[in-house]
Amino acid sequence: MSVERWGVFEWSQRVEPIGNPFTDVRVHGIFSMGNKSDTVPGFYDGDGIFRIRYMPGTPGLWTFRTMSIVPALHGSSGRFNCTAPSAANHGMVKVDPPYRFKYEDGKPYHPFGTTLYSWTHQGDSLEHVTLQTLSRTPFNKVRMCIFPKRYDWCENEPVFYPYLRKPSPAGTFAWDYTRFDPAFFRHLEQRIIELGRMGMEADLILFHPYDKGHWGFDRMDHAANIAYLRYVMARLSAFRNVWWSVANEFDLVKTKQLWEWDSYVDLLHAEDPYGHPLSVHHSMEYYDVRRPGITHASIQNGSLVEDFGRAGTLRDVYNKPVIYDEVGYEGNTPRRWGNLSAEELVHHHWQGILAGTYVTHGETYLDPKDVIWWARGGVLKGRSPQRIGFLRRMIDSTGGFDYIDKWRNDHISMTSDQRHILIYFGRERPASWKFVLPAKTGLPDGTRFRAELIDTWEMKRTTLNARFTLRKTGPYTIEDAQGARIPLSVKPYQAILLTRVD
Amino acid sequence: MSVERWGVFEWSQRVEPIGNPFTDVRVHGIFSMGNKSDTVPGFYDGDGIFRIRYMPGTPGLWTFRTMSIVPALHGSSGRFNCTAPSAANHGMVKVDPPYRFKYEDGKPYHPFGTTLYSWTHQGDSLEHVTLQTLSRTPFNKVRMCIFPKRYDWCENEPVFYPYLRKPSPAGTFAWDYTRFDPAFFRHLEQRIIELGRMGMEADLILFHPYDKGHWGFDRMDHAANIAYLRYVMARLSAFRNVWWSVANEFDLVKTKQLWEWDSYVDLLHAEDPYGHPLSVHHSMEYYDVRRPGITHASIQNGSLVEDFGRAGTLRDVYNKPVIYDEVGYEGNTPRRWGNLSAEELVHHHWQGILAGTYVTHGETYLDPKDVIWWARGGVLKGRSPQRIGFLRRMIDSTGGFDYIDKWRNDHISMTSDQRHILIYFGRERPASWKFVLPAKTGLPDGTRFRAELIDTWEMKRTTLNARFTLRKTGPYTIEDAQGARIPLSVKPYQAILLTRVD
Repeated sequence: MSVERWGVFEWSQRVEPIGNPFTDVRVHGIFSMGNKSDTVPGFYDGDGIFRIRYMPGTPGLWTFRTMSIVPALHGSSGRFNCTAPSAANHGMVKVDPPYRFKYEDGKPYHPFGTTLYSWTHQGDSLEHVTLQTLSRTPFNKVRMCIFPKRYDWCENEPVFYPYLRKPSPAGTFAWDYTRFDPAFFRHLEQRIIELGRMGMEADLILFHPYDKGHWGFDRMDHAANIAYLRYVMARLSAFRNVWWSVANEFDLVKTKQLWEWDSYVDLLHAEDPYGHPLSVHHSMEYYDVRRPGITHASIQNGSLVEDFGRAGTLRDVYNKPVIYDEVGYEGNTPRRWGNLSAEELVHHHWQGILAGTYVTHGETYLDPKDVIWWARGGVLKGRSPQRIGFLRRMIDSTGGFDYIDKWRNDHISMTSDQRHILIYFGRERPASWKFVLPAKTGLPDGTRFRAELIDTWEMKRTTLNARFTLRKTGPYTIEDAQGARIPLSVKPYQAILLTRVD
Repeated sequence: MSVERWGVFEWSQRVEPIGNPFTDVRVHGIFSMGNKSDTVPGFYDGDGIFRIRYMPGTPGLWTFRTMSIVPALHGSSGRFNCTAPSAANHGMVKVDPPYRFKYEDGKPYHPFGTTLYSWTHQGDSLEHVTLQTLSRTPFNKVRMCIFPKRYDWCENEPVFYPYLRKPSPAGTFAWDYTRFDPAFFRHLEQRIIELGRMGMEADLILFHPYDKGHWGFDRMDHAANIAYLRYVMARLSAFRNVWWSVANEFDLVKTKQLWEWDSYVDLLHAEDPYGHPLSVHHSMEYYDVRRPGITHASIQNGSLVEDFGRAGTLRDVYNKPVIYDEVGYEGNTPRRWGNLSAEELVHHHWQGILAGTYVTHGETYLDPKDVIWWARGGVLKGRSPQRIGFLRRMIDSTGGFDYIDKWRNDHISMTSDQRHILIYFGRERPASWKFVLPAKTGLPDGTRFRAELIDTWEMKRTTLNARFTLRKTGPYTIEDAQGARIPLSVKPYQAILLTRVD
């Protein structure tokens, strides 16, 4: 038997159920190769079946055995060969310190996500449309809730519920928070796998406030929350494209206190065997991103990507990657968070990129059937996704940019290999740009560049014939030796990309 | 005997010196009243004299006794009456959570500081001029180094040195880091007391990089640094106007590692008996302001106060007060940090205030004798101090402002008592302002305001006769019921102050 590196090995066994198999039975798998050994929990999948999933991170021959106080689950053993990953499998996304991400095989990962909070609760028909749509987008991360969401324009009941019901008298109703519904999780897993096939990370939102007691998943007690997180980890953490977003808008969940959020962060940090990306998304109050285990900042704030010199501040403070997961959405709702123009949302993406951070897409065009992308999926109506794709292609081919000078000149950015310099003009409409760079660029006199004019809205790149040669002209400036000035179209959202000529 | 509340009680005793009295002898005072008891360290002040200083925080009859392994210092006891503070004595400055400061008697403290890094190392003649100048300024905090500073335009030797010399062969030289020079500290204390008389806090910079081995105070070993901090605490912490700034530009001190800074923060936090304000000032790397003991952020960054919507971010992240202690200085040096116009520095102050943060003044006009305010003191040449005074008077009379809406509309701020709303236009030059406030203002329909036009540069306040009555007009807007529009002078740096009319 063989499993590719960063693939999923699964062991399963059917036994006679004892008591409540979700709570009364535990089984662990011990996976070993040479002096490496991982112990991972299994989970109950209904119908008497227990499963253990493991994602091997090292090629070679692995052995395993199981451990349980239930004799029928104890002492099972075997081996499998971990083979080289297939071409599209790069492993998990990890932080590339301090501010970037990369896959485990070293390939850089620049998150260009979209928001689909409740797309897996819409039934196969719409979910297949959503997958079709996703396959034609530039996105490589999806923010999605595990629990169903009830909110404006998203008030339908889900197809599956995460828990079984307690036996209750007619006319009454209660969830049994000690018994998960395996069908719910099998469905979710299927969607995670489908995203993975398209190269998309599943940024799983574990708790959110969009319930307000309708189902009550926002007000389970602490023990139920812990049991839920452990079940989710046991089932899902072997999928390499999983991220943990402990909450959406944690500070709007009025039924939980800060110590609870902290304990969930600590639990995921301590017990996730693989160290998936881990964040807590907020509304007005910032979660403490410096807390150990938090891999990156997941920020809600529109103001910080509106103009130059803002987006990098949080990253410098946190010393971790920053994703502006909510900056407002392209759409036409009466809510201000849901009526950005496509131009604005694309501009926000460029502002984020300029600052060495990332911005997440969302779309909220009203729909006669209330099928709004941001909550339920379906088709995209907006004009930002293809522009975000244009930006993503530029980033994938150059590497990520970062401010050259955090104090000033903050519309000029450079790649870490110093091969590319980006000058972005945002809403300004200059007629030309005098070739002056911050001295902190650190490039020696004589370094030569070519230039492309970039129309970020029209998605056009125009290469200029001219060559530019650097010369330090003052304590803070490096200029083209000929004093060149590059003419620009007098309209907003223009940029210049400089590329080293060797 | 009596001491006013938050004044300094001092006990002293002369004994025959034993060994090195700085290191070999320790004496503590135990100060008690009712069930309150504080144990504070004494210090050696030369000439056989040991002193213990104590700042009583509670009125009433205090008793004390001393403890030492040296019999002559042990078991001394006495009592003193702690009386009501004099009119100008408001106690120490403490954090008023989350973002403000207040004195211990409850009076709000809004820091309007200035920078005088090396003013106490210039000799009495210039130091007296500096004190004279200070007495005519609006400043209420002075950033100042304990150790002398050697840097451009400040290369003179100080009058006093903090350490005695080791006996060394002729032609060689070494400081004895186990023996402080009491004369140095007596002089420093005198200056701290004089600042206190003028109502100014002494923001004492304990370490800095402007030495580079010239004296070597930037490269003492860890044990010497700890001994220095303990000596400084024993001598100075009983002065109520002392603040601890562990470093200026900590990340530019190449001779210390992060764990050392952390340990100095922890030491001051653990051993300062009074909990004076405690911060670490930085250059490009941010210190972790969330660390316990750090009372507020002391930030160096010009970009964050240049435009709307920037300055509040750090405060929201840290959940502690933020002082932009270095945003560039008014002056004409060739360094960009030292050539802000007065208009720019005043604008930076308003940007800070608008965001519920504070900005510190500094002045760097070149001088034929290199007497530059920022380093050495002397007289002020600039035009920003009186405008900062104008702002301070407005803040002292209204209370501090804060953004109403962190996401947008970020040039509109309100006091916490909701009595005053500030609209600041910065570099924009609008001809009028339509009376529209963010709905987050939260004021009910019918609330009435009057308005003043404020010319922040000309320091003029013009009260309008009109009255304005609020009416909620949408999910995000409250407007004047008559749709009023207030005409403005078409020039930069204008503001409108709205005041409730009851």
